[in-house]
Order: sequence, then structure tokens, then C-alpha cells
Amino acid sequence: MIFSSVNTIWVLIGAALVFFMQAGFAMVETGFTRAKNAGNIIMKNLMDFCIGTPLYWLVGFGIMFGTGNGFGGWFDFFTNRLNDGVYGSAIPDGVPPFAFLIFQTVFCATAATIVSGAMAERTKFLSYCLYSGAISLLIYPVSGHWIWGGGWLSELGFHDFAGSTAVHMVGGVAALVGAKILGPRIGKYDEKGKPNAILGHSLTLGALGVFILWFCWFGFNGASTVSMEGDAIGFAGKIFMTTNLAAAVATLTTMIITWFRYGKPDISMTLNGSLAGLVAITAGCDTVSPASAALIGIVAGFIVVFGIEFIDKVCRIDDPVGAVGVHGLNGAWGTIAVGLFSDGSGTTNPKALGVTGEPVALPGLFTGGGATLLGTQALGVIAVIAWVATTMTVVFLIIKKTVGLRASEHEEIVGLDATEHLLSSSYADFMPALTSYGPAAEAVAVELPATRPEGTSADGKKLASAPAKAVSAEKSGISKVVVIMKPERFETFKHSMDKIGITGMTVTNIMGCGMQKGGAEFYRGVAVETRLLNKVKVEIVVCKVPVETVIDAAKRALYSGKIGDGKIFVYDVENVVKVRTGESGYDALQDYV
Amino acid sequence: MIFSSVNTIWVLIGAALVFFMQAGFAMVETGFTRAKNAGNIIMKNLMDFCIGTPLYWLVGFGIMFGTGNGFGGWFDFFTNRLNDGVYGSAIPDGVPPFAFLIFQTVFCATAATIVSGAMAERTKFLSYCLYSGAISLLIYPVSGHWIWGGGWLSELGFHDFAGSTAVHMVGGVAALVGAKILGPRIGKYDEKGKPNAILGHSLTLGALGVFILWFCWFGFNGASTVSMEGDAIGFAGKIFMTTNLAAAVATLTTMIITWFRYGKPDISMTLNGSLAGLVAITAGCDTVSPASAALIGIVAGFIVVFGIEFIDKVCRIDDPVGAVGVHGLNGAWGTIAVGLFSDGSGTTNPKALGVTGEPVALPGLFTGGGATLLGTQALGVIAVIAWVATTMTVVFLIIKKTVGLRASEHEEIVGLDATEHLLSSSYADFMPALTSYGPAAEAVAVELPATRPEGTSADGKKLASAPAKAVSAEKSGISKVVVIMKPERFETFKHSMDKIGITGMTVTNIMGCGMQKGGAEFYRGVAVETRLLNKVKVEIVVCKVPVETVIDAAKRALYSGKIGDGKIFVYDVENVVKVRTGESGYDALQDYV
Amino acid sequence: MIFSSVNTIWVLIGAALVFFMQAGFAMVETGFTRAKNAGNIIMKNLMDFCIGTPLYWLVGFGIMFGTGNGFGGWFDFFTNRLNDGVYGSAIPDGVPPFAFLIFQTVFCATAATIVSGAMAERTKFLSYCLYSGAISLLIYPVSGHWIWGGGWLSELGFHDFAGSTAVHMVGGVAALVGAKILGPRIGKYDEKGKPNAILGHSLTLGALGVFILWFCWFGFNGASTVSMEGDAIGFAGKIFMTTNLAAAVATLTTMIITWFRYGKPDISMTLNGSLAGLVAITAGCDTVSPASAALIGIVAGFIVVFGIEFIDKVCRIDDPVGAVGVHGLNGAWGTIAVGLFSDGSGTTNPKALGVTGEPVALPGLFTGGGATLLGTQALGVIAVIAWVATTMTVVFLIIKKTVGLRASEHEEIVGLDATEHLLSSSYADFMPALTSYGPAAEAVAVELPATRPEGTSADGKKLASAPAKAVSAEKSGISKVVVIMKPERFETFKHSMDKIGITGMTVTNIMGCGMQKGGAEFYRGVAVETRLLNKVKVEIVVCKVPVETVIDAAKRALYSGKIGDGKIFVYDVENVVKVRTGESGYDALQDYV
Repeated sequence: MIFSSVNTIWVLIGAALVFFMQAGFAMVETGFTRAKNAGNIIMKNLMDFCIGTPLYWLVGFGIMFGTGNGFGGWFDFFTNRLNDGVYGSAIPDGVPPFAFLIFQTVFCATAATIVSGAMAERTKFLSYCLYSGAISLLIYPVSGHWIWGGGWLSELGFHDFAGSTAVHMVGGVAALVGAKILGPRIGKYDEKGKPNAILGHSLTLGALGVFILWFCWFGFNGASTVSMEGDAIGFAGKIFMTTNLAAAVATLTTMIITWFRYGKPDISMTLNGSLAGLVAITAGCDTVSPASAALIGIVAGFIVVFGIEFIDKVCRIDDPVGAVGVHGLNGAWGTIAVGLFSDGSGTTNPKALGVTGEPVALPGLFTGGGATLLGTQALGVIAVIAWVATTMTVVFLIIKKTVGLRASEHEEIVGLDATEHLLSSSYADFMPALTSYGPAAEAVAVELPATRPEGTSADGKKLASAPAKAVSAEKSGISKVVVIMKPERFETFKHSMDKIGITGMTVTNIMGCGMQKGGAEFYRGVAVETRLLNKVKVEIVVCKVPVETVIDAAKRALYSGKIGDGKIFVYDVENVVKVRTGESGYDALQDYV
Repeated sequence: MIFSSVNTIWVLIGAALVFFMQAGFAMVETGFTRAKNAGNIIMKNLMDFCIGTPLYWLVGFGIMFGTGNGFGGWFDFFTNRLNDGVYGSAIPDGVPPFAFLIFQTVFCATAATIVSGAMAERTKFLSYCLYSGAISLLIYPVSGHWIWGGGWLSELGFHDFAGSTAVHMVGGVAALVGAKILGPRIGKYDEKGKPNAILGHSLTLGALGVFILWFCWFGFNGASTVSMEGDAIGFAGKIFMTTNLAAAVATLTTMIITWFRYGKPDISMTLNGSLAGLVAITAGCDTVSPASAALIGIVAGFIVVFGIEFIDKVCRIDDPVGAVGVHGLNGAWGTIAVGLFSDGSGTTNPKALGVTGEPVALPGLFTGGGATLLGTQALGVIAVIAWVATTMTVVFLIIKKTVGLRASEHEEIVGLDATEHLLSSSYADFMPALTSYGPAAEAVAVELPATRPEGTSADGKKLASAPAKAVSAEKSGISKVVVIMKPERFETFKHSMDKIGITGMTVTNIMGCGMQKGGAEFYRGVAVETRLLNKVKVEIVVCKVPVETVIDAAKRALYSGKIGDGKIFVYDVENVVKVRTGESGYDALQDYV
Repeated sequence: MIFSSVNTIWVLIGAALVFFMQAGFAMVETGFTRAKNAGNIIMKNLMDFCIGTPLYWLVGFGIMFGTGNGFGGWFDFFTNRLNDGVYGSAIPDGVPPFAFLIFQTVFCATAATIVSGAMAERTKFLSYCLYSGAISLLIYPVSGHWIWGGGWLSELGFHDFAGSTAVHMVGGVAALVGAKILGPRIGKYDEKGKPNAILGHSLTLGALGVFILWFCWFGFNGASTVSMEGDAIGFAGKIFMTTNLAAAVATLTTMIITWFRYGKPDISMTLNGSLAGLVAITAGCDTVSPASAALIGIVAGFIVVFGIEFIDKVCRIDDPVGAVGVHGLNGAWGTIAVGLFSDGSGTTNPKALGVTGEPVALPGLFTGGGATLLGTQALGVIAVIAWVATTMTVVFLIIKKTVGLRASEHEEIVGLDATEHLLSSSYADFMPALTSYGPAAEAVAVELPATRPEGTSADGKKLASAPAKAVSAEKSGISKVVVIMKPERFETFKHSMDKIGITGMTVTNIMGCGMQKGGAEFYRGVAVETRLLNKVKVEIVVCKVPVETVIDAAKRALYSGKIGDGKIFVYDVENVVKVRTGESGYDALQDYV
């Protein structure tokens, strides 16, 4: 067969760029979440691609592009018949079938990877692998067949050029269903349902991810012409223009909205704004004018801010990276927008039929074409939402009932790197800040066991050498109580102190070294032996509240009966001075710092 | 119109790569500055692109490429006439006008983004958006018209193939003017004008940025043929070769110079060296031989080291990332170098006229062509410096008089992420080191208010329960004074301790939790509530200096009258041993650690 | 000469992508090693490219592609004869010679950069520059000539399409020899030879590096057709498919193996798995079927896990990033695999001869071709191993005998950023964790000098004001000993405490400020003056062990006689409570935390 040099170059470069979006997603998702889960998120992003690639090769591609019927292709195991010509016009003219297969594979993986962001920081790794596989195996290919594989939506004239619906909304809807079934992260909402912010651990990596995604989107949208001959050449230029303009305007709009709403321009939301614009222009990048692209971007900016707030504050669905707002809502918006702004010049549905130059996208509602296309677009959006929501609900519920969907509370608080991958930290050389553990949903103080009489050993014998319990010197009337504890107990501890009227404390990250060893950790096949464990030291200086009250409350907050529950030390303080008022002694302690 | 597949592929891939330079700049600029401003720098890099894109579409492109006259094109609002053929030969043969527009848009954004590095860590965000917009709207397009839009420099035979002057020097001169008007960062120079080093917070991200820029420079220079047909093919190969060679040699030269000058190879300067070589080869990459490219690289290495030192130490202009040395000085050098080394084989000024194969760059001074081209090149450099310096001075002064150019001292010390974006940290899960706050320019001790008599409450009543002030036990004669303070006050505090003869102290980053709440912070639309604030704990063990002197000096250093001024605790120390000498007690305290 | 647009586009984009692999290697290598060496590794990655580029231009290319004889080309200084046609068919049809030169340059740099990972964290920077230069100058070009330059292996029909052997195994074997001669990092093996894990400092950057490498591998393998005309078009599509599939399957296999072996999926090993699959498919990506590619990937997954373990645990060669397992072992495997799975459809050895469409790779053992090709492949592997192992041994030994190969123990413990580049930290704004210094190989306690009598000054005079040594109040019988020390002494200190029965301590990173100044540091040409140095504070609460014993042991562990040896403070503790048992006082101290 004679292949086209330029078409193949274009498709293959597009494939490489769309592959590289995996790096972008990985950086955005890890940057916007906590350091204790960084390795886990990286692994999820990596594995969805590595599971999706063979599964899409195994059957996904056949289901999506096999001629079959309007609802699905056929099972072409290992795409054995790829070079046999049976795919007909599904494989564009002049493009080697393998080039088309790899191009479609990387699109499929994009849909799968979107979900991991919304379900980050609390999903079991095994479960992630399973549902991610299900998306690549079946769910994405079926709706993909409807849109790009010659299926029923394609027949109706539904226009989704590079996948606002086929890729992004599929990922976004799966993300929404998953985040809803999974429930919010511990501490995300307080007892009254008020959301707490849980800060991402590296906005620079998050921003790098956004830049990578934007860069790769030129391949995602541009190479979706799957041709660089004839009319496709001009379309490619236009697509670069509309894609970039919509993204820039959406970013600008988001920045301005956050400036008005929150008083200052919000960084991570603005970064989401870029992605929102890119998602929204994806369906119509070939068939809308630059001015329409700018309008689509402005609306995308509004949708992403208010959409994310709505999901977070009203629906109380915890989506750590804003995947639902970015990919779900803007995927839908971008698809609908084609029905409003299409100028009728778009290429034919390129992935299914190749570029012929005939306009298949009708003009839109605001561009003189009436409501026909708008209706088709809306129908497609609804149909795909229904398909994905239904099937993903089934998939998630099956996983929930079998292997379980959510990590345990302990795993979530300690972090998935440590518990799912036996890696104490993805950033071993940096001191962690406390915030990475909190906030805890509920501070649960525990029942203390009956303490045995002091001066006796664990087996009840009188200890001869036990010195008298601390002489209650406290000459100044001021004592310092120092408590060493596990970081993950700190929130509970703080809660307990609040209840007994202690509001002031200083908190230091330390490392404790004792008989307690770290759990069995592995790094690259070698057991990690450490006796230095991350601990938190809390210092409380008290005068009014008796030391005994503090010690008792601390014991209740920290007791679990396991090695590593911590220790409490008491020291005498000579004097205290409060800088602001100049008060010293007792007076200085009536509030803190 | 019939477009060329290969030309369009080449230009569009170039556009994507040049876009991706934004990621490179963002990583270099954030990596070379402090963590407390990381999110702010990211935002500035993102916004200059997102503001520049619509403005360049709005009028910039028309001014730059409209036929107009020698000094500027015309106002083509929203580039409405782009497809009407009125741009004539300004749009290269065979390239879709939209492809050419997007290619030019990403070049424009590069010029704008260079400025942010030199003005980093102290420029107001709003002001940044304004002057960045002015560059894209007018300043870059006008000088761009002279060089690439058929303007007067182009007519004279000025050769700046991919933009050493048109892009980099424009950015570098604007950066110089801006950094000069803005003044140095607090603490950058001591009272005698001696520069202090302010370390970047992530050299790995900085290096990643340099690698990204180098990668994308193949698009920046290579795709500036805006053609991949006929002679352009051979030129493209040569351009890759000269670009890479100049960059490699410049890096090597810089590394060796720093090794001789500072005793060891300097990492961040060497990274600057790579960029210096890339900037310097940009003007002549098509028309100099590989050997000349290597020479240009060697000189670029010298210029970047001595240029950055000159600007820093002699001019005392604070340019945190070396933007002036890299883009300004080497932009000028690269342009002049064409007049020295051009072999007369260069393509015609490609962006304006397309590639025709006629050499327009004359041979240079060292390559048998006499001084004509050198004179033209020098004239072009001077003219563009004059244009940019004048207009940017006006722009900066207008901004300074209206909305203000510089962040307040408080904002700068606390960091722009917290004050300009209400984000406590871009790295929430990591413990910050103290260095991120210092050094303070001047340690200002404050007047203390009259203290009310001890044992009385704020309203003057006698406090019944107030215990006697610390018994002055000090049995060992040694006391430990512990001071808890805001991180941003530490430099002032240290200064005060110096004055009373305290040179030894240990400093710990802690978190303080008290009645003082964090300011209103927002993250993705959700208020961040925290009562754990970053604080610094300083421990001073004294024997000779009376405890009262220390407390008094500390109070003066820390007092502001606002909640959160901190507290001072005094403890008794039993003994001290100095390891090196074996001394204990009083002797051990005569110097420290 | 008439060049081909599409071939040139393909080769140049490939060159840009393969250049960008440098960023990938830099991120993987720095991410998988410790923060204290991050800048050093970045510099090594940068410099091997910047040294290799001019050397390969100087003579490397001529040696590799000059017609010469079967064992090497000729010395073509500065590739002066590049455009003279003397290279004959070595330069593929339709590709500008400069384009081919730059494409080959970036391949050469890849081989050189692989070595830095295996020798990371302990190699002198100067030595690195020297041996890296030797690889680019001679070692890589000679074996490259055999394979791609028309040399004897090429004549025999050896098939290594994109460089499993020519690039990766060359790098991997050099890495193995280097790591062996260099010896392991301090603390990597305990006295019994049992390996310790030394955790990487940023798995997110490591993962980013892997994604970058995978992305660029599409250029590495795909553009190695050096053509995009005729049959090469179809092969390019196939290459993308096999490359991606092998990588995905290898990743998946590695993940599953680690899950079984270590109980949980290991993150960094899985990331190595991706690279293993990419290396293994590189030789045969054009001539094996997708199914064979998947098989190659599965085996690569096994090889990387068991290979890295074997090298680490059995050979006791310390390869911090797994370079030997990834590039060496899988480079060999990939080359052998061609002899097993080649379907005989591969392109001719493309770099030497251009694509003609004739199959030169015979079918393999499992694909009906008998053992002929397998024998040739095995011979090639053995010959290249012999060449590289021999020459690199000579190079390393010469360097070892002259300038020295390994950093001093002090440099290694403190970190190469500080000692080789005078940069205190590549992450100045973050608090380092202690782990970055340890584990120390051997805890060496030192001889203390005779202490002079207390109460006398250094010159022996009686000190009038010296207070009596700490009254031994210890009313509660419990004391806290606080030791301030240099971070690099901590491991030795801990060892000493172990010996006197102290197992519990808390460790805090602090900054010490005293008369001791930091060493002369430079950052961008400006001296860094700091009196705040990183220190470690250890707190030990003792009851049973006498305070004097602890002080004495601490003095022995920390003494060096230099300023900065540290101080020891003693405090009285009022009481201690152990949370788990509720014990207080003496009982609570019988184990710790």
C-alpha cells in the first residue's frame, strides 16, 4: 500500500505528543495533591497507560473501529486483522494502520487517566488498575465507536472533532461517578459539610503539567485531522489558532473571576482554567472561528470556576484536582458549543472517515444553521453521559463489593506511598510539614486501659529502683509539657487540647529513634531499615490548667496500645514574657503566640 | 489556496515547540528564585502568554506584518483581514495564514516572558499584567516590523534570522529597564552596596527549564525557515547544527570560566551559559559556519559570566535569573556576530519574505565581506535598544505613578504567594528553611510601648492569681532563653542579638498554634482555615549577658503591637559542655557551636 | 543537492527528541539519588552533552561513519569533509549531511549520559568530564562504526536498528565497569555486605524523567528510519507500535513481579521497568511483530528486576539508578531478541545504508529463520562488551591513577553540591531531612585530647568568674541531655549511643548560628555569606545511664578539634510519662517513644 509521508509524520508526531500528556496529567495530579501520596499517583498515571495499551490492542480498537453495527465494532483479538483491509475507511487514507492504532491508543489512555485525579489520595491501587482497565477495554471504545467509529452518533452528524465528549467527558463522567461513590477524603468536609481546603504539595509541578498538556494539545487537536494533505493543511493551521486562543482566553477569564471572587487571583484555579479552555475547544477546533473560540474560552472560564465550586460546596463531591469541572463540564460545554458556533467549515469526522473536504458539521445556532446541529450535539452528550455513568457505576460497585474501592482510614491518613508501596516518602531528603497529615475528619479520643499502680512493673512487681514521681517543684508556677507523638495522631491531640482549654502550643517535626522500628519497607528490592521515624513534638506551657489535666488528655488522645504511642515530658519554666503586651509570668500565658 | 504540507508541518511543530518554551522559562525563573514566590512566578509566566495571545491577535500582528510603512504596519483588529491576501509576501508561500499567525504569536510571548525573570520576587502582579500586555500590544510588534515585517531595518539588509534582537534583546532591554526602575530585592545589597547571593529554591527545576528551552530552541531557530522546501531543507539541517554547537560550546566555556574564577564550576551560571549560547546563535544560525558558531558560543560564555557580574556588582541592578546577561547582552552579541561571521549563505529574512534562496545576508567582516553588514547590524541593535528602552521607561513610569510597580516591603518579605495570591505556600507539605525569608535589608528595632505594671491586667486591675515573677533560681548560673517569633522578624532579631554580644543561637522552624489565626487564604475557591502558623524558635543559652538584657533586646526587635508578636521563655540549664575544647559551664559559652 | 523535505523533517524532529532525552536522564538520575548531590548530577548530565557535542564533531563522527575499514573510519577533523560526498552511502539519501550529523550527535550523547547514573553520588566532577569525553571521542564511535558505519558487524548482518547495543549497552557496560572500579557509596553495604536502601529524593522528578524518555524514544526509534518515504513510512508506524507496546508490557510485568516479591508494587523499580522495555525493543522495533514486542517486554520486566537485584545483592555493585540493569542487561537482551523474533521484514541497517526496502535482518530462531541471525547477534553483543569493558577499564584506571576517580569520604558525606560546586543546597528553601546524610559506613569514634582542668582558660589561667559546675540538682532523677552537632556526624553519634545502651532519642534539624562561618560558597559569582549552618539537635532523656557517661560518649563521637564540633547541654526533667503503658518516671524510660 502506498502511504502518505506527510500524513504519517503528522499522525505519528501527534501520537508522541498525546502520549506525553501522561506526563502532564501525572504532574498536575501529583502537584495538586499531598506529598504523602505522590508516588501512588505517579504509579496510577503510569499504570493506566500500561494497562490500557495492551487492552486496547487486545480488543478495544476492534470494538471502536470495527465496522460492526451502530453500537459497536467487533472483537478483533490483538488487532490481528488490522492490515487486512477489513476496517475499511475507518483507517484514514495514506496512514499506515499501525500508525492509526498507536494514535488511537494514546487517546484512549487519556480518557482513562483523567479519572485518577478526581479519585486521588484515597483509592486502592489494585482497584484503580481494575477500573482503569475497564475503561480502556470497553467503556471508552463503545462510546468512541458511536462518535468516531461510524456508529449511530456519527451517522446523525454529531461533531466532536478531537474528543471533548469522546475522550474528556468520558473521563470526566467516570471521575464524577467514582468520586461520588468513593466519598470525600478524610477531613475534606467538617461536621457541618463545610469544605476545607487541602493544599497541593507542589504548584510548580502542577503548573509544569499544565504547560506540558497545553503543548501536547497541539498534537491532540492538530493531528486529529489525521492528514496533512489538501484541505487538512489549512484546517491544521486554524486548529492551532483556535486551540491556543480558547485556552489563553479561558485562563485569563478564570484569573479575573477568581480575583473578583476571592480577592486575589487564585493560582491553581487559573491553571485549571487553561485546561478548561483546551477541553472546551477540542470538539469544535476545526469548525469555529477564532472569535467563537475566544467566546468558548470565556464561557469555559466561568464554567470551571463555578462548576468546581458547585461540585465542591453544593454536591460535596471531593475532586482534588478539579477533573470533573475541567473534563466533564467543559467536555459537555465544548460539544454543545459546536451546535452554537460551528461555521459549517469543519472537516468531516476525521477519525472515522478521513478528510474529504466536505463539511459535515452543519452551521450552528448562532451562525445561521438553526437548532439541528445543537440538538444532535445535546443528544450525543446525554447519550454518552448515560452510557458512561451507568457502566462505571456498575464497575465501581462490583469493585467495591469484591476487592474494595477505598483505602482504609489508616492508609489514607498515613499516606498511600507508605501503605500501598512500602515507601516511607517520595521525598526522602525533605522534612515533611505537618499539614500533609491533616485535617482529620474527627478527632477520636480513645478509652485508656486501667493504669497499673505506679512504681510497679508490667507484671505487677514492685520496682525497687523507681524514683519518686516528679517532685512538684514548679517554683515559678509555670510548667512545660512536651509530648512526642506519631504525626497522624496530631489532629486528634489538638482537638483534645482544645477541649481542656489549651489553645497555645508549638509544634516541631522531629525524628524519634527508639526500639520501635519502621514497618517493612522496600525500595528497589532492598529492605529499608530505619529506626528514625517521623514524629511530632508538641510543647505546651501551662500555668492555669494543671499539668495533670494536660497529661491525662494527652494520654487519651494518643493511646492505641501499640508501640510508638509516644511520651510526655514535664519541665519547669522560669519565666514567660509576651512580646506584644510586655506581660510576664501568668499573664503572658492567657493567650498564645 | 494550495498550501504546502511540509512547510505547514514545519511551522506548526515549530509553533508548538516555541509555545513549550513558556514551560522552560517558568521552570528557570521559579527554580532560580525563592520558594515563597514560586506560585507568583508561575502565574506571571502563564499570564504573559494568556494576555499576549489575544492582544497580538487583536492588533499586534497587524502592526508587525501589515505592509504599512517602514515604521509600522496597520491596525487589523482581530486580524480580520488575515485571509484576504492584503499581507502580501509577509505571509510565506504555502503556509496557511493561521499557521503563520500562531507561529508569530508564540514568538511574541517569548519576548514578553523574558522580563518576568529580571523583575521577579518584588513586582506587583497587576503591574506585571499591564506592562506585559504593553510589550505584546505595541513594543514588540513595532521593532518586529522593522526587522521582520518589511520595515526600515529589513530594507537596509539587517539580518536577524530567528530573533536575537527581535525577540531576546527586546526582552532583555525591557528587563534591564524594569529591574533598574524597580530596584533590588530587599537584602540583595548590604549598606556598602556589596551584593549578597540569594539562592534559588530548586536548581533541578531550573535545569529542567534549561533542557526544555534548548529542546524548544530547535523549533525556534529551525522552524524560522518557515519552509521545508528547496534550499530551506539544507538550511534547516545547518541551523540545527549551529544552534546545538553554539549552545554546547557556550556551556562548556561558562563552566570553565566559573571554575577558574570561583574555584569550582558554578551550577546556575553554567545553566545560564547554555541559554547565552542559544540566544547568541539565534540571529546567525542560518548564515554562519559551525566553526563560527563555536566561536560565537565561546564569546557568549564570556559575556554571560562577566556581563552578569557587571550588572550585579558594578551596576548594582538585581536580576535574579540573569535575564539581562542572557537575553540582552547575548542578544546584542549574536546580532553583531552576524556582521563578523556571516558567510553570505543565509536564507533571506524568512519571516518577512519567505525563503527564496537568494542570500540577503552579506558576508561579514571576518568572512571577506567588509564592514557593511557589521554597520547595519550595529545600527539595528542601537535602534532597537533606543526604542525599547524609551517606550518601556514610559510604560514602567506610568505604572509606577498609577497602580504602583513594586510590592510593599511586607509583601516582599512574607512572599508574593501569600500576599498576592492568598496561598500560604506553593509547597504546603514541606518544611520551609529560614533562608527563604532573609536577608533583611535593614534590621529595624522598634520603640516599645510603656509596659503596664506586672501583675495587673490590661485594664489596670490587680490580678489576684498572678504568681510571683520567675524566681531567679539560675542555680548553675546558666539560663536558656527561648524566643518564638514570626519568621519574617528573624533577621531583625538576629541583628539585635549581635548588638548585645550574643553570637550563638540555635534556630528551629516550628509551627505555632494559638488564638492568632492565619489571614484569609483561598485555595481553589475554598477558604483555608488554619491555626498552625509557621514560626521560628530561637534558643539562646546565656551566662555572661544577663537574661534581662536578652529579653529586653528581643522585645524591641519583635514588637509590632499586633497579635502574633511572639513569646519569650526562660529555663534553667544545669550544665554546658563544649565538644572541641572539653570546657564546661561558663567557659563553654564563650563562643558558640 | 536535492534533499527530501519529509526525510529531513523526520530526522530533525528525531534529533530534537533525542536531545530532549538529556532532560529525561537528568530527572531520573537526580530523582533517584539524594538531594545533596542534585546539582552535581544535573551538571554531569549537562556537561556530557556539552563535551560530547564538540568532540563528536571534532573526530567522533569521522571515526564512526568514515568509510575507513571494518574497524573504524578516519579522522575527519571538525567533519570538514562532511559536504564533500566522501561519506558515500553512510549519509542517507535525501537528508542534508548536517541533519544527519546532528542526529548522530544526540545519539552519541545518550550513550555517554547513561554512565553518570551508575556512578552517581561519589564520582569526582573532573573525572566525570574526562571519561565522558573519552566515550564520545573514541569508544562509542568505534563500536558504532562496526554496527552502523559499515564496519565488520554490519557486514555480517548484525541488526541493531536504533541502538540497543550501539547506544544503550555501550553505556550500560561502561556504567558497570565504572561502578565496580569506583566501589559502592558509603553506607550502601553494611559490614556483612548486606545492601542498604538509599532512597531517592524525588520520585516525582524521577517519574517525569521516565515520561520524558518514553516520549523521546518515539524519536529515538521512529526517526531511526532516517527516511519517511516509501517503505520507511510503514515501518515508522510499526516502530511506534512495537516501541510503545514493549514499554507498556514491561512496565506492567515489572509492577506485578515487585508486587509478588516485595508484597507491594514498587514505584522506582516499576519506573525502571518502563525504561527496560524501551531499551529492549530498540534493536528490533522494526523487524518484530507487536506480539513479539510484547514478549520482549515481558522478559525485559523480569530481567530488570532480577538483574538489578543480582547486581546489587550478589555482585555488590552499587548502581544508584539501575543503569546497568536497564541499559546494559536489557540492551543485550534486546539485541539477542532480534535473533529470536525477527520476522525478516526489518529495514536495512538504516543509519549506515538508508532505507531501501530490502530486508537485511534474517528471520530469527522462533520465526523460522534458524540460528544464523541469533549467532550474529550474540557475537555482536560479546564483541561490543569486550571492546567497551576493555577500553573503559583502561580509561577509568588512568583517571584513577592521575586525577583520581572518587570523591573523598568527606565530600561524599557532606554532598557533592557543597564540595564540588560550593553550593550549600540545590533546594535552599527547604529543610533537609537527616536521611540525606546517612547511613555512614562506619561510625568512627575519635580519640579525645586531654581536657584541661575545668575553670581554667585555654592558656591555663584560672578563670575567676567561672561558676561552679552544674549543681547536680536532678531532683527527679531524670535529666535531659541535648547535643548540637554537625549533620554529617549524626550516624557516628548514634552508633556511640547504642554502645552505651541509649536507644531512645529525638532528633531535630536546626540551624546553628555562631562564630563558625560557612565555607566560601559561590552562587552565580557572588560569595554566599552565612552564619546559619545546618545542625542536628539530639535530645536524650536519661535516668539509668549516668549523664556523665552520655557526655563522655558524645564527646568522643563528635570531637574533631575543628570549630563547629558542637555543644552539649544538660537540663533537669520533672517527669516523664509513657503513653502506651501509662508508666511514669523511671519506668517510662526503659524503652523509647
